[in-house]
Amino acid sequence: MSCAFYNRMREFIVVGHKAATDGQFSLNDLPGSAGRMDIMCRCVNSALFLSHDLRRDVVIYLVLLGEPEPPKIVKFIGQDVRYLNPDERSSGSLIKKALELKARIRWKESTPGVWVRQGDLEELLSELITRPMQGDEDDESNEGDVGSENRLYYLHEDGTDIRDGIGGNLPQRATFILGDHVGMTPDEEQKIIDAGAQSLNVGPLSLHADHCIILVNNEFDRKK
Amino acid sequence: MSCAFYNRMREFIVVGHKAATDGQFSLNDLPGSAGRMDIMCRCVNSALFLSHDLRRDVVIYLVLLGEPEPPKIVKFIGQDVRYLNPDERSSGSLIKKALELKARIRWKESTPGVWVRQGDLEELLSELITRPMQGDEDDESNEGDVGSENRLYYLHEDGTDIRDGIGGNLPQRATFILGDHVGMTPDEEQKIIDAGAQSLNVGPLSLHADHCIILVNNEFDRKK
Repeated sequence: MSCAFYNRMREFIVVGHKAATDGQFSLNDLPGSAGRMDIMCRCVNSALFLSHDLRRDVVIYLVLLGEPEPPKIVKFIGQDVRYLNPDERSSGSLIKKALELKARIRWKESTPGVWVRQGDLEELLSELITRPMQGDEDDESNEGDVGSENRLYYLHEDGTDIRDGIGGNLPQRATFILGDHVGMTPDEEQKIIDAGAQSLNVGPLSLHADHCIILVNNEFDRKK
Repeated sequence: MSCAFYNRMREFIVVGHKAATDGQFSLNDLPGSAGRMDIMCRCVNSALFLSHDLRRDVVIYLVLLGEPEPPKIVKFIGQDVRYLNPDERSSGSLIKKALELKARIRWKESTPGVWVRQGDLEELLSELITRPMQGDEDDESNEGDVGSENRLYYLHEDGTDIRDGIGGNLPQRATFILGDHVGMTPDEEQKIIDAGAQSLNVGPLSLHADHCIILVNNEFDRKK
């Protein structure tokens, strides 16, 4: 299916600094055995779920930096994903299946709409800036479309309020970058800034990444 | 601790129509064995968690209507709760412990900040309307305080947008009522209306209850 059906596309990138990079973890202990994989699971839920549907216009990338085979990236594509329920264990199970594959530097699909590759934040940012957004590869209508610019946003408590920073002029394509419970390292922050990301916050208090994603999605819902 | 420390208090009520009412369910299968208890668990997370703190000014009530001993209510009090982590299994474990107690018509504390009683939505609404909000019992400063009025809101897609319906004039105390994946029954809706609740929505799309709670909390965060 082509992305041309959707007015606006958005992507989320969440960095899990301790999140497991093989499929050996226990679904009964996502926080402990899988390096706070529970955070990643909740982010998948926040990014993709509507009340009785999935958000077909959203992609979420999980950058996993924990042992034993870092770095890896797992992505969920809203328009393709299957077998996903809202509970943490469900997304945890799909992440586990993806990590059971032998990851290479090219994307490989593990279950419908869930893909895995080797790679870190810098490589992912480079890929997103230089390549068309997921699904655009076969969408010739986007050629030369000025609305297809992909804007990067770094969600951070010191940023500009999203209600002011994006306002009524929503980008056609937007990528939001978020840290996990330990935030970003100075090196990661520098790479995000170097990639041209604008800093935004979602309110006056510091919130979990999955809560931030809900608030970003709502801001876009209101402007459709 | 007295609620006088907090500018505004708010409560959430979530009705789990199939949610288990004893502690026999498996933490490894919250959706199946516990009647979509995963929804209740995510609502607890959404209501109470900040990035590195808990929301001390929030109470959440889970009205559980599933088998085998309905109806029961479990409440989490933000200013008192202990042993709560953000993952579903953690809140599920505290709910399970509460449901292992023999519930009576009076509140009984199972673990710090987590209480259980027999009762349904109508009884809870009656209690909240006629009694001071949790924590006010020993707070003499609230006597005769016109700001202590408790306003009821029913979160529903046909309601007024919360950004217009509450606006800059936030109530000192507010209670938000939400349904689970099956919504409210006509009988429950009538009781909510009879209790004087105003209908609000959090945006143009229908969202999960836990996502709605995030958006309500954010609206209050922005007005503090």
